Amino acid sequence: MKVGDRHYRSLWAEPDRGRVHVIDQTRLPHEFEVKTLTTVEEAVEAIRAMRVRGAPLIGVAAAHGVALAVDRDASNASLDRAVAALRATRPTAVNLGWALDRMQDKLANVKPLKRAQAAWAEAQAIADEDVELNEAIGRHGLALIEREHAARRRRIEILTHCNAGWIATVDWGTALAPIYMAHDKGIPVHVWVDETRPRNQGLLTAWELRQHGVPHTLVTDNAGGHLMQHGKVDMVFVGADRVTRRGDVCNKIGTYLKALAARDNDVPFYAAVPTPTIDWKIEDAHRDIPIEERAAGEVRAVRGLDAHGMPVEVAIVGDETAVSNPGFDVTPAKLVTGLITEKGIVRANERDLLEIWPRSQESKAYVT
Amino acid sequence: MKVGDRHYRSLWAEPDRGRVHVIDQTRLPHEFEVKTLTTVEEAVEAIRAMRVRGAPLIGVAAAHGVALAVDRDASNASLDRAVAALRATRPTAVNLGWALDRMQDKLANVKPLKRAQAAWAEAQAIADEDVELNEAIGRHGLALIEREHAARRRRIEILTHCNAGWIATVDWGTALAPIYMAHDKGIPVHVWVDETRPRNQGLLTAWELRQHGVPHTLVTDNAGGHLMQHGKVDMVFVGADRVTRRGDVCNKIGTYLKALAARDNDVPFYAAVPTPTIDWKIEDAHRDIPIEERAAGEVRAVRGLDAHGMPVEVAIVGDETAVSNPGFDVTPAKLVTGLITEKGIVRANERDLLEIWPRSQESKAYVT
Repeated sequence: MKVGDRHYRSLWAEPDRGRVHVIDQTRLPHEFEVKTLTTVEEAVEAIRAMRVRGAPLIGVAAAHGVALAVDRDASNASLDRAVAALRATRPTAVNLGWALDRMQDKLANVKPLKRAQAAWAEAQAIADEDVELNEAIGRHGLALIEREHAARRRRIEILTHCNAGWIATVDWGTALAPIYMAHDKGIPVHVWVDETRPRNQGLLTAWELRQHGVPHTLVTDNAGGHLMQHGKVDMVFVGADRVTRRGDVCNKIGTYLKALAARDNDVPFYAAVPTPTIDWKIEDAHRDIPIEERAAGEVRAVRGLDAHGMPVEVAIVGDETAVSNPGFDVTPAKLVTGLITEKGIVRANERDLLEIWPRSQESKAYVT
Repeated sequence: MKVGDRHYRSLWAEPDRGRVHVIDQTRLPHEFEVKTLTTVEEAVEAIRAMRVRGAPLIGVAAAHGVALAVDRDASNASLDRAVAALRATRPTAVNLGWALDRMQDKLANVKPLKRAQAAWAEAQAIADEDVELNEAIGRHGLALIEREHAARRRRIEILTHCNAGWIATVDWGTALAPIYMAHDKGIPVHVWVDETRPRNQGLLTAWELRQHGVPHTLVTDNAGGHLMQHGKVDMVFVGADRVTRRGDVCNKIGTYLKALAARDNDVPFYAAVPTPTIDWKIEDAHRDIPIEERAAGEVRAVRGLDAHGMPVEVAIVGDETAVSNPGFDVTPAKLVTGLITEKGIVRANERDLLEIWPRSQESKAYVT
């Protein structure tokens, strides 16, 4: 998507020079800075520090991290070390493990001499596939917005939580892809953007939407229920970090609260989910999905611009105050109207989900 | 309650010197500063800028604002002007109108020469009654915590939203009064403190609890649902800015989301409500309670300490981003387990509420 007048992906590689470039999302929206990664350690740091974030992009970045490692040292030991280090960065997003498994499967049977080239090619393939998946999600989600617009014949109001836009993927985004397509097609849409404390990823969403010219309004995470009670939200679109085979949606902390409000006010609630985000091995989300407890500093500090327009962090509380910072929550399938996948809209239950179970997974079939 | 070793009320008057002192809550928790008000205009500013805040304290502060006005000019015109200016400060809290009506009723029949003395006395009476009400609320809420503790035989986990502590009243607080009493009685309690964006009144709650030594943990507004899903919350205690005769609770924006999560997880949800907070004239909360749309700047800016420990405000977004900032939401009575009033615990429905309808209101009886 565009930043200013130029088209960007959120990550791109230069295999010949052994470099990967990412947009540093910890700087946004206050500064736009491209960071260059040349080692797997830098890739690990970028994922852990959330310079790259968003479940799909984490997977793509991890794949490129493997390529960086193999480019320098193509031994089995190097490959295994890289995969282990990258896997430990973020426990919740399933795409991370999925992309690393795929890289490892692919490279295991390639001779070390040819591994670097194969790794770059596979990482590039994962990135390109991500763009395709999101474009397909966009088309399916667009049909939902079109239907809503045909019924209401006015601007369609969509609430989103966190950032599931192009910057959270390689391009297009997941939850925002349908919105970009609707806007491009001339359907009037307006987005309520949840701030999404503690890291305020809603500011990334607002930044993206502004770059693309989509009308939007920033609200605190507390406001969404009130907006729905007053008929100001027609649909909720969110992304997902992991979805179980039963359709439970693990996503950014606070998503569950919006899903509850959506149900209480008869507002349809959709999660945009590329199928690599579905964890076919997990049934009980509460028991089996590890919820990342992130650093207390994320709650204690807020980043913004000071009176001189300089980026600065302020502490809202000090170390004397205990803080808890769970990164994700689980929205039970019963609250989910539908999952927008690249294969179409699927209801959030095991039977419907199994119909889109990818054949490539059959060899590791899960036995109930 | 105590700040350091000294006992404070959140507001106190010196009628002889025509002065009212308040703790400036916009400075907390980073700075403790007492502000002195000498004119009604300063009282208006203090309420509007939320130097004093919390429905009960707003009422008490408004009563003292009337006293300041009458002290300087005891004419009917001065009284009417003061009441009108004070009434316009904050539209949602019912205590404001209640206290102003009471001052006006009291002073209307007092000759101007004796008005100043009567005004100070009545304002003081309102303040003292607030303390009594909250103490009674504390005792009734304490019984709930004691019951929970007897059943669970472990530390009781209570989640609260915004600040309904002593600083939001004259002393004791509403939602926090039972918690202070339980703690003082040796019952182990721990409080999950919602940050409460945009103004982060949760930091006031954390500050209060720390001064009093009550264990607590700060979380973002997004976290409460997740905590409840994992059995980490035994009870939710919140305050209220206005309660309808049917038991709908209007409180700080985001309260409704916590009430939804409480119901979904079978966690009891209580609002602590002095009866002056009940608006006997209102049945339909969504139709009839004005929800204050506050300044966008509250969402755009966050106050904290910079790297040198100096209080500073940072902008998380600029004027290019549209912002909406509704100050309150309505939690429907169906989600409320009970109202903790000074007259006891009342179920949130019209029949039960009418049993505590104050006799003093009968003269203005509401006709269905």
